[in-house]
Amino acid sequence: MGVEERRQQLIGVALDLFSRRSPDEVSIDEIASAAGISRPLVYHYFPGKLSLYEAALKRASEDLAGRFAEPHEGPLGARLLRVMRRYFDFVDEHGPGFSALMRGGPAVGSSTTNALIDSVRQAAYEQILTHLGVTEAPARMELVVRSWISLAESTALIWLDGRRIPRAELELQLVHDFAALAAVSAAYDADMAALLRTMVKDEPADGPFAELVGRLLSLAP
Amino acid sequence: MGVEERRQQLIGVALDLFSRRSPDEVSIDEIASAAGISRPLVYHYFPGKLSLYEAALKRASEDLAGRFAEPHEGPLGARLLRVMRRYFDFVDEHGPGFSALMRGGPAVGSSTTNALIDSVRQAAYEQILTHLGVTEAPARMELVVRSWISLAESTALIWLDGRRIPRAELELQLVHDFAALAAVSAAYDADMAALLRTMVKDEPADGPFAELVGRLLSLAP
Repeated sequence: MGVEERRQQLIGVALDLFSRRSPDEVSIDEIASAAGISRPLVYHYFPGKLSLYEAALKRASEDLAGRFAEPHEGPLGARLLRVMRRYFDFVDEHGPGFSALMRGGPAVGSSTTNALIDSVRQAAYEQILTHLGVTEAPARMELVVRSWISLAESTALIWLDGRRIPRAELELQLVHDFAALAAVSAAYDADMAALLRTMVKDEPADGPFAELVGRLLSLAP
Repeated sequence: MGVEERRQQLIGVALDLFSRRSPDEVSIDEIASAAGISRPLVYHYFPGKLSLYEAALKRASEDLAGRFAEPHEGPLGARLLRVMRRYFDFVDEHGPGFSALMRGGPAVGSSTTNALIDSVRQAAYEQILTHLGVTEAPARMELVVRSWISLAESTALIWLDGRRIPRAELELQLVHDFAALAAVSAAYDADMAALLRTMVKDEPADGPFAELVGRLLSLAP
């Protein structure tokens, strides 16, 4: 194998191990053994576990950011629901590593890992703005989108801790949460009210937004 | 000064400095100077900056957790709004230190600091459950409360970054966000629907929940 090919293979093996267990429980010996090479050869390609972890995290970050890309076609609610499905696929595939990373701590908290987490959040933020047809978000819109992204993260982390709620329900709930947070903000702000009207204008009668309204109406006494 | 008195004074001086700037920008020399003692004397009480930082963070955590305590009297919306005011008071007083801590990174991310952050989140979670009259939260209720706590954190962090929205508006918005997230969850779950009815049953016509409903109705075409 060539140098770059071997590096890429090691990153793949390491990402698989770092995804399935908390990174501080994964040793270089284990990575070497899973890759079928010697421990010194791992160190030939990566100076230590942290640099290999960061390379694996970089690949995972690019993978996740890529899953946010969604064609600008059809109703917004259905687009967001498809993204949520791909997001939960990712969270499902990388569960223990995702939890350890997002909960922070010495094994996973470096300025590089924080920058990678921020780059994924920023990619999600920018994708959502393009679907909303906005280039410069006013302050309240930025707040709604960024705080909803953090809500999606915490919802995924709570789901991973025991998986007590079916993930399909949470994917749809997060779409509804976005609409609900936008609606609260719209109650304060004309920009957000205009955005909300755009969001719901092309929603079909059987789409997720209409379903939410139906469910909420059924709660009324 | 006695040993314990001196330790407490140093913690207070350090907390003040760690609150006003990112902790990695604060030196032991500066803390010694602000406390009016020599650098070696600081090391006599604390082995290093990290242990002093952790002691300061422990004091701040207890302070913040204490602000969640609210008498079990009057409508729920007004109680939560009073807690939100005290929460933003805290965030305002400790702005740069709060941001640096919650954004993580090597200067502030240790297992001790993470445990302190978790203890504050847990205190908030338990306080909310007692106000809802719940001892064992079902899975969906736990999700709503815990994910709303993370929404409150991210809202405070976004506010600190430029303070472009009046904090009083965000304090009220977070109360509304709680109701909105509970309403979305209630659309899926009988326990949450029953809880929502309890929440709104004693709300006055001029309380925050009624205000939200009025604002939302005014959005309708």
